[in-house]
Amino acid sequence: VAKRSKQHWERVAIVGVGLIGGSIGKDLLERGLTRDVVGIGRRESTLRTAKKMGAVTTTTLTLERGVVGADLIIVCTPVGRIAEDVRRVAAACPPTALITDAGSTKAAIVAELEGSLPAETRFVGSHPLAGGEKSGPAAATAGLFVDRTVVVTPGANTRLDDERAVSDFWKSLGAKVVRMTADEHDRVIAATSHLPHLAASALAACMKKDGQALVARGWLDTTRIAAGDPALWKQILQVNRAHVLTALGRYEKVLALLRDALERGDEAALEQILLEAKRTRDALGS
Amino acid sequence: VAKRSKQHWERVAIVGVGLIGGSIGKDLLERGLTRDVVGIGRRESTLRTAKKMGAVTTTTLTLERGVVGADLIIVCTPVGRIAEDVRRVAAACPPTALITDAGSTKAAIVAELEGSLPAETRFVGSHPLAGGEKSGPAAATAGLFVDRTVVVTPGANTRLDDERAVSDFWKSLGAKVVRMTADEHDRVIAATSHLPHLAASALAACMKKDGQALVARGWLDTTRIAAGDPALWKQILQVNRAHVLTALGRYEKVLALLRDALERGDEAALEQILLEAKRTRDALGS
Repeated sequence: VAKRSKQHWERVAIVGVGLIGGSIGKDLLERGLTRDVVGIGRRESTLRTAKKMGAVTTTTLTLERGVVGADLIIVCTPVGRIAEDVRRVAAACPPTALITDAGSTKAAIVAELEGSLPAETRFVGSHPLAGGEKSGPAAATAGLFVDRTVVVTPGANTRLDDERAVSDFWKSLGAKVVRMTADEHDRVIAATSHLPHLAASALAACMKKDGQALVARGWLDTTRIAAGDPALWKQILQVNRAHVLTALGRYEKVLALLRDALERGDEAALEQILLEAKRTRDALGS
Repeated sequence: VAKRSKQHWERVAIVGVGLIGGSIGKDLLERGLTRDVVGIGRRESTLRTAKKMGAVTTTTLTLERGVVGADLIIVCTPVGRIAEDVRRVAAACPPTALITDAGSTKAAIVAELEGSLPAETRFVGSHPLAGGEKSGPAAATAGLFVDRTVVVTPGANTRLDDERAVSDFWKSLGAKVVRMTADEHDRVIAATSHLPHLAASALAACMKKDGQALVARGWLDTTRIAAGDPALWKQILQVNRAHVLTALGRYEKVLALLRDALERGDEAALEQILLEAKRTRDALGS
């Protein structure tokens, strides 16, 4: 179905046209990968903005109507709603359509869908590591996925062709695709994305008024992601809470080591942890 | 002595020509605020780089020789060495010279110097909130202080004229000057700079190898300052450890609230903390 060199979709439906969904639509249209992007949403105003942004060509409030005739459907709703939306998409779209999602957690979604979808449904889960603290269709950006990592999480029943088609779709937007099981994804992403969100949010939340005058770039960098949408993030953290709690435990342990070194005035121990942190950070780019 | 509109220094001596000292030198020369900047350092190679960067006009390894004839001296050495360097500067420079420093902690330095300097010495402590994870003279940048905050910390014996002269010096480099006592500075900066350094370093240090493939912008932003020089930061954290431990305690408390909300599956409590964090973050710029 999808050729790596040049894909073309007859009609793409995007469920949830926020930052991620809107950016996908813009990319597909601007790169000439389709001429027809149906934006499906729950609020007229969001759909209007998405259309004005050039992210979709038509819009509808009715999911079942929006996916008719689509050969690619991307579900970009909040993680708590993805499984149900995929089920509704699968029931209403052509049986040959390729379906993926953009959820930040994967195991719960895959577990909920595995076995409950029609046997012919071509669903493969995805997580594009893009976006950040902005949200909504007004933040949609062409090229958002260029050089970004997308994790594709095939399940036990996934056909290799479908996995390849979903990978090729993300590659057609410029992304690098990594393949993982849903469980592995959730465990690793807890440390690289969900824990940083907790760490940054706690830092912003414990800031007192009198500190505002002395806020500089370090604080701003360290807390940037705390500006993310609380309603979306509480879902992500809650859905992945077992792995998040494990990652948080590791973090608390290092903080306790730092506290201990400070309390004992042990500069060597302090420097050792800072050095380990610097080495890890330096190895991962700027 | 210093007029706000256009200052001019006969000869400026900078003790420690790393990122901060080097940037000050570049600014002074490029803005025509002096023609003569003496770079004082402990390593020939650093001084050579500073000269090549256009940060200083002459260099010396001997502090006492470097400050002869200077009317402005800025001590930009690591916090653990500043008090001693200021004492040496005061003993060797003209008695009319204005002296300041660029240390990230202030109370210990001011306390150590207060009363122990010659009565006529014109020393006022400063902390420019600029710099970051890079260090060394090769990172020196003209305009580094433009729109950045510099805290000036007059002590009980500081003459108003001297405080004003130091403030005007920083303003001549484009900085915004905030006046605080050294103690107040150290308490507030512990929360806005030193705690973020611990939080970012702990995040980088607790990262496992398998997470590297899924590192994205959020992790990179949140951990950026962990790339700072461990030898400098262990001193800063150690010197200000009482305030740092208090700030760390506040942070640990919020993390414990987040943990508790996750463990109990209390999404409302989770969202409340995330919302508070977002409000604080949104209010403080991007």
